[in-house]
Order: sequence, then C-alpha cells, then structure tokens
Amino acid sequence: MTVSSPCRVALLGFGAVGSAVARRLTCADPDSSPGTQLTHIFDRRADQKSASLRTDGVVWTSAIDDVLHSDADVVVEAIGGVEPAAGWIRAALLAGKSVVTANKQVIARHGASLLTLAARQGRQLRFEAAVGGAMPIVRAVGEGLAGDRITRIVAILNGTTNAVLSQMEATGCGLDAAVRDAQGRGYAETDPSADLDGHDARAKLAILCALAFGLRVDPAQIDTQSSASVTQADFVQARQRGGTIRQIARADYDHRTSTLTAWVAPIEVAASSIFARTVGAQNAALITGTHSGETGIFGAGAGGEATAVAVLGDIAAIARDKAAVVPAPVLRSNFKVLSSVLAEAV
Amino acid sequence: MTVSSPCRVALLGFGAVGSAVARRLTCADPDSSPGTQLTHIFDRRADQKSASLRTDGVVWTSAIDDVLHSDADVVVEAIGGVEPAAGWIRAALLAGKSVVTANKQVIARHGASLLTLAARQGRQLRFEAAVGGAMPIVRAVGEGLAGDRITRIVAILNGTTNAVLSQMEATGCGLDAAVRDAQGRGYAETDPSADLDGHDARAKLAILCALAFGLRVDPAQIDTQSSASVTQADFVQARQRGGTIRQIARADYDHRTSTLTAWVAPIEVAASSIFARTVGAQNAALITGTHSGETGIFGAGAGGEATAVAVLGDIAAIARDKAAVVPAPVLRSNFKVLSSVLAEAV
Repeated sequence: MTVSSPCRVALLGFGAVGSAVARRLTCADPDSSPGTQLTHIFDRRADQKSASLRTDGVVWTSAIDDVLHSDADVVVEAIGGVEPAAGWIRAALLAGKSVVTANKQVIARHGASLLTLAARQGRQLRFEAAVGGAMPIVRAVGEGLAGDRITRIVAILNGTTNAVLSQMEATGCGLDAAVRDAQGRGYAETDPSADLDGHDARAKLAILCALAFGLRVDPAQIDTQSSASVTQADFVQARQRGGTIRQIARADYDHRTSTLTAWVAPIEVAASSIFARTVGAQNAALITGTHSGETGIFGAGAGGEATAVAVLGDIAAIARDKAAVVPAPVLRSNFKVLSSVLAEAV
Repeated sequence: MTVSSPCRVALLGFGAVGSAVARRLTCADPDSSPGTQLTHIFDRRADQKSASLRTDGVVWTSAIDDVLHSDADVVVEAIGGVEPAAGWIRAALLAGKSVVTANKQVIARHGASLLTLAARQGRQLRFEAAVGGAMPIVRAVGEGLAGDRITRIVAILNGTTNAVLSQMEATGCGLDAAVRDAQGRGYAETDPSADLDGHDARAKLAILCALAFGLRVDPAQIDTQSSASVTQADFVQARQRGGTIRQIARADYDHRTSTLTAWVAPIEVAASSIFARTVGAQNAALITGTHSGETGIFGAGAGGEATAVAVLGDIAAIARDKAAVVPAPVLRSNFKVLSSVLAEAV
C-alpha cells in the first residue's frame, strides 16, 4: 500500500459546526480523521477565536483569499446563509478544491449548478451535513435507495422546532418557554423564526426532492405553515385524539402525472408513529419506494458535534478517493406543484 | 455532457434476487436503471429458466466462462453460499470486472481479501444488499457515520426469523406454524435453520463489525443461540413483563481495551423499543456513536424485490463512476472477544 500525502483541509467558519470539525480534525486520536490534515481556518473574527483551539501549524485568517490561494485539497464551508457562502463555494471549486458543506440554503438554491461546476472541475461537492445532521439521509436517498422509484418522503427535518414542540408536549409549557429552553440547550438561535416558520425544513425538503424525485424545486414552491402559533390547547386536543404535534415536512411525487405535493407544517401525528417518538433535536424520515416499501432513518438532527460527524464522513470520502465523481443531477422542471394541502395542519 | 456507452451487466443466478434484478434491468421504464444494459444471465438451469423473462439480446448461459470472458463491465453475484460464489467473484475481478453481490457469507469470510483484489485491479466490489435488504445500512455505517467512532450496533438482521417470531407474537401460534406461514409468504427457505440458528445474522454482524469497528471478525467468533426453541410460553412471560421476543444481533466494541462483545440470540425486548415494532420480514438497527449518539435505520430486510433495490443502487454507483475507489479496509485482528454474554437470552 502506498502512503499518499494527507488530504489538506481548510475550514470556513468557526461557529458551532466549524469548531466541532476543527476539534475532531486536530484531536490526537488517529482514528478520528485518518489521512487528513487541517491547514487553514477562516473566520471573520479569526484574531479573537484563534486562542480557543490549540492548532499548531494551522493558519488562522480573516481573508478568504488566503484559503482560495492555499494548497488545501478540501474546503469545508460552515458559515451558513446563502451569500457569501455560495460565492465562496463556487470560488473554491474554480480554484480546484473539493468542497464539503453543511449549508442547506445554498444546496437547495444552487446545488445543481454547483454540482455541475464541481463535475466540470473534476472535483467533488458533498453535503451530507446539509440535511438531517448526523442522520445519513443524503446517502440513503441519493445512493442507497437510488435503485428504487421513490414516491414519498415524510420527515422531521428541523431539530430546533422538534425540540420546542416535544418540550411543550412533555412539560405543558408554552411555546415561548420552550424556545427559551431550546436556546439554553444550544439548539435554537436568538431568532428561531427560520426554524419555526419552516424555512429551514423546506430548504432541506427541496434538497430531498432533487435527490429522490430528480426535481428542481425552489424552496419557495413548498407551502409552509409556521409552528410559532402552536399552543398548549392544540396539544390537549391532539392528546384527546391519541396524538401529538410535530413539524412535518412531506413530499409526494406522482411519477405518472408529474405532480408534486410538498409542504411543511405543524400537524397532528399518531402517538404510535415514529414522529411522535422523535423528541428533542432528533430528526426522522420515512421514505416510500415502489419496490422497497418503507425505509426509515432517524438520528441527531442538530448540534455542532452531530453535524460534524456528517462533515467528517464527507471529508473521509474525498480523502480516500480524490477523483470520485459526485454526479450533477439532471433535474426536471416540467412538473406540476399542487396547491397547499394543509388541511391536516394544526 | 458526453454520452458514454451503457454499463454492461452480467447476472449470476436467477433465483428470487437475480430474477428481480433482471426484471428491473429489462423493464421499459428508463428511470429504473439509467445507463445500464443487461447482457448475460448465468444460471445452472438457464435452459429451463430462459423462457421466464422476455430478455431480447440477453445471452443465457450455464457456463460461467461465458460471463468471465464476456465484455460485461459489472458482474452481479446472486447465487448465495460461499463456494463457488467466492471463487467466481475472484475470477470476475481478475477478469477486470466490477462486482455487486448480495452474499453475506462471502463478504463476511472473504470481504477484506476480495476488496483488496478489487482495489488492485482498479475495480469495485459493492455489497449493500449483503446486509439489511433494502435498508441501506452498509452505506450508513461505512460512509455516513464514518466520521464518528462507533461503539455499538444492536439490530434485527434476519427477516425470516423476525417474520416467524412476530407471527408467533401476533397470532399465538407455535414456531412450526409460523415457519410454515413464512414459507408460504416466500420469506423462509425449505430448511430455515440457518436463519433461526443465527448463522445468517452473525455473518451480517461480522460484516458490520468490519465496517463499524475495523475488526476482522470470523462469524464463528460470534456466539449464537438458536431461535428454533422459542415457545409461546416464552412470549407469555415476555408479555407479562411488558416485552416481546426478537432475534437480536448485538456488537459492542470497547476501543480503549480493544474488546469486542458480539452475539446473536432471541431475547426479550421492551414493547416500546424499535425492535418490538419491527414486524414481518423487516430489519432494524440502532448504531451508537461517540459524537452522534444513536442513529437508527429500518426497512425491508428480505425478499427479492427489496434486495434488488440495494443491488441496483450499487450498479448505479458503478455505472456513474466506473473508476470509483471502494477502499479495502485495514482490519485489526489484535482484539479480544469476550465470551458469551447471553444472560438475557430467552
């Protein structure tokens, strides 16, 4: 076996996910990230943050060009938001680097064009961390079940909202108190509206529609109803009917008529369902295929440590096969979207 | 985009899995297997079986050399058993073909050496179908969670035994009647002893130990206790304690002391657990990682159609990236195996 040079990794963003990735890449345990070497950390506040991790030999910088002009093989984008993240991913691919990202908004909006660019450059764009945290749903849908015709995905895709709703269920508290609790545990942002409103989940659902159905879905085409107005009275009513409330993201595709029905909303789920049993920041998904029936997956859907697991898995995939082809999907746009089917919503 | 020649597929074995793969590869739906073409079907009884599928342009043969000397890019091994399957996989790799197999016994015993041979040949050996049917656990453990340190796997890995035990639970019937029922549904072989005895599940668990822990585990090192002697009295007792009975495969690895504890046995599981809710021929697994906590996966664990989904996913992966590297694992043999921990067994 030839000993090849380690895979050089540059990290953009030293927040919850980025710092967890950096700790794993620099920890002494050789099992943690074999064949990889962290070389650069970019952060707007690099000068303040560089003391927080012992990273001998790692270049800290607040100038993106230091990363783009570096000899890094892989750029990990852990900044979040659409811009400048999308532009920097594009620039990294153009500079001949492979990219690993946890950014659902960028992949939902620009995934197809970025994957095309990556393929043209002979580089890879991997994004397991963009959906489902540590739960490997991108591989499950995009590869494991690629041999089936998938017709439906029903899922809990936002860990923050799930933590809030399952806390309301467990303690009888109001939504505001549950949000404060989730913020205290590090699950919820200062402004949790993108989570509660469903904008986070619908971006992830749009990514899954591309992987599962081969459709180019703009997140804005996915009807959403906010979970911010769910009250204890809703939980009491749901409980009386043998259920509880979760933010569900659902997409059904009728291949025969090329019709997509997709929405994100707080709905009542049966107490016996996998969704009722999904508590805290967990995610879960049921995927229905014509030949395989129902396949389920669940796991840690949020948090820096869990998301870092998905990022590190993608880095490892690149490190062991730098020339691997991550195919740019051929996405159809000639499909109908049914108008809102939120009759079930709370 | 350049139009490349289709990936040419030869099939070994036209049983439940092989015939399902052949039907999918030859069906008119272009979504079913884009970029692939079935060219050869090998079966010992090719002359009798060739009438059962309309396969214009496909060569039927009962001579293995016709496949090995063909221009097929990929050989799908769906024969089962250790020999001659292992020898033919080796011969196919040596002939410059990539191989997709559903054969847990071959991968459990010879996976590491065959993967090494494949890597040396610049070809691929893929085996998603060898564990868990359509449930994509090989990718989940080997790639999706590769960024974590996995410490435990608890799973239902044999669909036949699960169908038998869950039928006994549901109907109150005896084991013999449940076996006949499973045979009638096509889940159980005429001789179901390899399923009930745990020999099937322990081969799959050995594969998961290689993927999850990097250990070279001989299936014979995994203690098994047969499910063939489970009675209704056992179910009655389990129910009184709020549980039921399932054949569980479990492996715990203590990385600090390099100690593996692994067994397959019928044990009592809590009624609220994912395992109690796994009925019929389904499989399920809980994977515990240091950083990701618990990740779960479940799905159709047996049956030709479901297993074909995993085979077709592997064929698609090869078709889109013929030069992909499926790394030969570096497996440790310097670990201790704890003696039987079957105190919980029924």
